[in-house]
Amino acid sequence: MTKTVLITGAGGLIGSVLRNTTAERYNIRALSLDPIPGANAITADIGDLNASLAACEGMDSIVHLAANGSERASWDEVLPTNIVGTYNVFEAASRTGVKQVIYASSNHAVGTYDMERDPEIYHTGLPVVNHLVPVRPDGFYGVSKCFGEALGRYYADHRGLNVICLRIGWINRQNTPEGGIERIRAMWLSHRDCVQLIEKSLIADHVKFDIFYGISNNRPHFYDLEHVREIIGYVPLDGEDI
Amino acid sequence: MTKTVLITGAGGLIGSVLRNTTAERYNIRALSLDPIPGANAITADIGDLNASLAACEGMDSIVHLAANGSERASWDEVLPTNIVGTYNVFEAASRTGVKQVIYASSNHAVGTYDMERDPEIYHTGLPVVNHLVPVRPDGFYGVSKCFGEALGRYYADHRGLNVICLRIGWINRQNTPEGGIERIRAMWLSHRDCVQLIEKSLIADHVKFDIFYGISNNRPHFYDLEHVREIIGYVPLDGEDI
Repeated sequence: MTKTVLITGAGGLIGSVLRNTTAERYNIRALSLDPIPGANAITADIGDLNASLAACEGMDSIVHLAANGSERASWDEVLPTNIVGTYNVFEAASRTGVKQVIYASSNHAVGTYDMERDPEIYHTGLPVVNHLVPVRPDGFYGVSKCFGEALGRYYADHRGLNVICLRIGWINRQNTPEGGIERIRAMWLSHRDCVQLIEKSLIADHVKFDIFYGISNNRPHFYDLEHVREIIGYVPLDGEDI
Repeated sequence: MTKTVLITGAGGLIGSVLRNTTAERYNIRALSLDPIPGANAITADIGDLNASLAACEGMDSIVHLAANGSERASWDEVLPTNIVGTYNVFEAASRTGVKQVIYASSNHAVGTYDMERDPEIYHTGLPVVNHLVPVRPDGFYGVSKCFGEALGRYYADHRGLNVICLRIGWINRQNTPEGGIERIRAMWLSHRDCVQLIEKSLIADHVKFDIFYGISNNRPHFYDLEHVREIIGYVPLDGEDI
């Protein structure tokens, strides 16, 4: 049977790429704050728990992308959507019997390592920032993603959801790392690698909880790609020398 | 010069023990939601940023204890104080030039390990839950403490504060582990050990960021006491066979 998938933040870049490339393989419901075209599109605010409950009803998996996506967002900007809204999505998923939430976390949850090239982390060779390092968020946006990961761990351990957190690197509309500074180019994620990562996460709906990095095979890169290869078989097809 | 210390949640158990035993060694300002006796007592809600700013003015260190302290608190109960209020305290401390925040985190940030005796954690010998393990909160209260730790790391790395997070075990008014179940007895913290831990944290105001466990020397115990001994010299004087 075709898997039913709710995409929150479906009008954003990742949501749009995902809908455009996978619409025939899933029964997609697309939730967005502003109206988008399409038969299964819902215009709603995840800040509203009741709207989130209605959106989750009947879904197998949720790809939770909705957020204030600015790495420079203020506290007042991240609170309603990234914090309260993310609670609403996990809570609604749990209450409506959804099996899996794929949570769009971010490199900014651990961004300080990379900014500092923290010798404690980097002295053992590259890549070294993996899914086990203590979080080091580089702003309120990153803090909100650390919150979402901790919340996801709680829902996985205690509330029956299976949760995968994807620490997405740098994805852009032009789909090329050109123009970025070195440390950002090292975490570039191509559109097709992003789609592969999310689709392999959807297949891995038996994974209770995990954290994976979402980057292409850029050379060098500082985020671990071995763990995600081992657990769900993600092997990026793109990647650039930087 | 006598150190100026703001205690938030000064009317609670830890706040009361701290005020009663250390009042002569520090210049203490006591903030609480409900009025408490004393010359330097402020009645205020940390949910109010302006009140938090006024409370932080002129302080060297803050011992941030204010929270909904129920491990069974709902999301709606932890949001205003443990999440928004904790942001207000860190933000106010940063803006007013406070040097250090000592943040009362909790064993509940990692409580799932202990509940499950997770073999991945426990197979290497005891004690094994240390300051580096990925968080595994056991409820919304625990999630709110993971949030506070991540926020503290951000303020330490990027906003000039020195931050120590104390994952407090089980402290109670009667000051004895009697009556607790085994896994709770293993994390008992006596009043004088709690005071020692906070005072040694106050002395260690040069520590940029760290996470320590706050338990007495119970036998056996599952939270690491080596790291806190090494970094700030905390050696519990109490402890029970369980």
